[in-house]
Amino acid sequence: MRKYKGHTKLVIKPGSTDEVSKVLKYCNDNMLAVVPQGGNSGLVGGSIPVYDEIVINMSRMNNIRDFDEVSGTLVADAGCILEVVDHFLAEKNHIFPLDLGAKGSCHIGGNVATNAGGLRLLRYGSLHGNILGIEAVLPDGTVMDDLSKLRKNNTGYDIKQLFIGGEGTIGIITGVSVLCPQRSKAANVAFFGLESFEKVQEAFRAAKSQLSEILSAFELMDGQSQDLVHAVTDKKRPLEGQHPFYCLIETSGSNPDHDSEKLEKFLEHVMSEEIVSDGVLAQDETQVQSLWSWREGIPECLGHWGGVYKYDLSIPLPELYKLVEDTRERLTSAGLVGDDEKYPIVGVVGYGHMGDSNLHLNVATRRFDKEVEKKLEPFVYEWIAKRNGSISAEHGLGLAKKAFIGYSRSETMIRLMKQIKDLYDPNGIMNPYKYI
Amino acid sequence: MRKYKGHTKLVIKPGSTDEVSKVLKYCNDNMLAVVPQGGNSGLVGGSIPVYDEIVINMSRMNNIRDFDEVSGTLVADAGCILEVVDHFLAEKNHIFPLDLGAKGSCHIGGNVATNAGGLRLLRYGSLHGNILGIEAVLPDGTVMDDLSKLRKNNTGYDIKQLFIGGEGTIGIITGVSVLCPQRSKAANVAFFGLESFEKVQEAFRAAKSQLSEILSAFELMDGQSQDLVHAVTDKKRPLEGQHPFYCLIETSGSNPDHDSEKLEKFLEHVMSEEIVSDGVLAQDETQVQSLWSWREGIPECLGHWGGVYKYDLSIPLPELYKLVEDTRERLTSAGLVGDDEKYPIVGVVGYGHMGDSNLHLNVATRRFDKEVEKKLEPFVYEWIAKRNGSISAEHGLGLAKKAFIGYSRSETMIRLMKQIKDLYDPNGIMNPYKYI
Repeated sequence: MRKYKGHTKLVIKPGSTDEVSKVLKYCNDNMLAVVPQGGNSGLVGGSIPVYDEIVINMSRMNNIRDFDEVSGTLVADAGCILEVVDHFLAEKNHIFPLDLGAKGSCHIGGNVATNAGGLRLLRYGSLHGNILGIEAVLPDGTVMDDLSKLRKNNTGYDIKQLFIGGEGTIGIITGVSVLCPQRSKAANVAFFGLESFEKVQEAFRAAKSQLSEILSAFELMDGQSQDLVHAVTDKKRPLEGQHPFYCLIETSGSNPDHDSEKLEKFLEHVMSEEIVSDGVLAQDETQVQSLWSWREGIPECLGHWGGVYKYDLSIPLPELYKLVEDTRERLTSAGLVGDDEKYPIVGVVGYGHMGDSNLHLNVATRRFDKEVEKKLEPFVYEWIAKRNGSISAEHGLGLAKKAFIGYSRSETMIRLMKQIKDLYDPNGIMNPYKYI
Repeated sequence: MRKYKGHTKLVIKPGSTDEVSKVLKYCNDNMLAVVPQGGNSGLVGGSIPVYDEIVINMSRMNNIRDFDEVSGTLVADAGCILEVVDHFLAEKNHIFPLDLGAKGSCHIGGNVATNAGGLRLLRYGSLHGNILGIEAVLPDGTVMDDLSKLRKNNTGYDIKQLFIGGEGTIGIITGVSVLCPQRSKAANVAFFGLESFEKVQEAFRAAKSQLSEILSAFELMDGQSQDLVHAVTDKKRPLEGQHPFYCLIETSGSNPDHDSEKLEKFLEHVMSEEIVSDGVLAQDETQVQSLWSWREGIPECLGHWGGVYKYDLSIPLPELYKLVEDTRERLTSAGLVGDDEKYPIVGVVGYGHMGDSNLHLNVATRRFDKEVEKKLEPFVYEWIAKRNGSISAEHGLGLAKKAFIGYSRSETMIRLMKQIKDLYDPNGIMNPYKYI
């Protein structure tokens, strides 16, 4: 949205945990506000200095410290780029338990600080389960040395968990220890067209039951999102004809023959039962990439006309897509959506991680228009609150969602969170004006 | 060990979260110490009233509140018995992501409070990843209502994580929301004899690589543990002849044919490469249970002669078994181990969750003998500290390990933990004399 513009007079690039400690201690003693910054790829303004905060950029701390091939435990600096780490692990026949669009620039420290979700969560679970240890520096310069490589350690409160999703408000993560799964020998991708969201749910249930342990992604894209990708890229569509909904299914497993057999059986089932209308199975790595591009390319394509209002929401599955319909209806009847230049909105689309009940509601616009924002907020947040959903499934709070946390959290929970913030950062120097 | 004897004049059995809240508020206002108690099956004295604490027993809060078959999310009272919940889930084609020997009496609230590990962790990961929400009552009576059913919710600090493994020292868990996996259609169990711990490690690496996504347990038992089980039960051994080490491997998956094929291929590999000396594959459910009994029966059989010193340790895999050898050597050369009544120790055995680097070192004794304890402690803890292991992998701290936390945690971490304790329980009424 080009919504936030950073203002700072100083960017510090520490090269070690000790340097981070000295910098934070100095800032804390002198009441200087700081903003920790990883790859700066967040979507809620969390890494932006709002007034004149000092930016502490972690990019120089980018060493892989240790990897154990038997247990799959990786220890690395916070400033390592996700894709670099994943390539390193690929050579060792392992993968990072997280993958997301920004992998080429985001830092693993930032991933942990924002509790990133992404494309592999369905299979490998959340970072709260996969992060074995964290080294972080507290505002007063204390180094929290909890870089455990142990899978099990029941000796006291699991304090590092507060830093997973803490968005740099109680300390700066300088190193992480991560449990990395073995890389699968086989990966398959299928792409479907479906006639309704009911069919999408049926397909998801069938995939969970029949693909079970090899299912590694179940992604949803609506017809409009694919129309807009097509309008921008002009690439040949994966399927003939058009459908209201599309799904991308990925499997990964240790035996290519077994996986293919399971997937073919699944395809036969969903085709013969008319759960899906049409489908295609990638035949090689190029086709795998090409099919994924229809999902991963959405965010960039939507920005083609101007700015995009992005909402990252958790919604109970049966109602997941209803929000897109309700929002589209609301904006359309307000006369804000159309093909013509005179309408501010190009389209209202929904896509996301169906397997995690995580919807990305995106409104692609031609220009900033106050009316659009007024119609969207607090409408979207109220809609979510009514269904006990989350107003930020995986993007975090940052600056953008700070004011809206009350739609997803009770007063009690917010009070308990503020206690934690006050405990660790009594001077309020860490990433101020944001989060809770 | 019959080491702890509870002393209390009052056991309270609340029937609702509101009643827990009123009880705790009263106790907090009047400075009365309390001990939360689930199934009372812990091994570190965590649920024992040390002096005259009031016991708050959760057994009356045993309702399953909600289950959603599409997402697999279960919401249940803390006092539900694990096995009851697992049977309920079995009917719905799902399983609880945790299994352990005490399942017939332990409570799921207690499992979460102690961050129980158990037999399914290798496959489904830790409770830090699988618990979606927690309802807990704080010492001042505040109800922390964080019973989220969402798989993703990045809106603020994940405070519920402090209660996972908090051992009832900052509040009482009254309800949990859990992500439950689909129940596998096929389950297979194999049992091996191996000549050395090096071979055990080779077998583990082969299992990770070849069984990969269907591997659900890799358990280790040493020869002495099996000798003692045999001495007590007099059952026919699964394999002809005797071996220094045994492993039990379980697979579970969605396609019985595929799983059998993978397992047979794996068996062929480890037999032909002489990684294992002998092996057997369970042919039916009775044999599955029978093979598991050689692993699950160990703790009970070891108690046959008297008390058992139990250590639950995380150790980097290559050195996992060395502790058993070193301890056995130490106790034997001190003249404490023998077949005869005159020796206090019957045997020093090692077994555990190889897949999680989690060893159970057990010393079976005929009677209490001060010399035995003196030789064991702090020797075992110092041995662990030197290798950056954990002195409590899955049993927790409770009363038994409180004094030894310094062997696994730095002064900084202990200080940060005490801060948390003081923040939530300033009067120190919750499970005092224990934990940190």
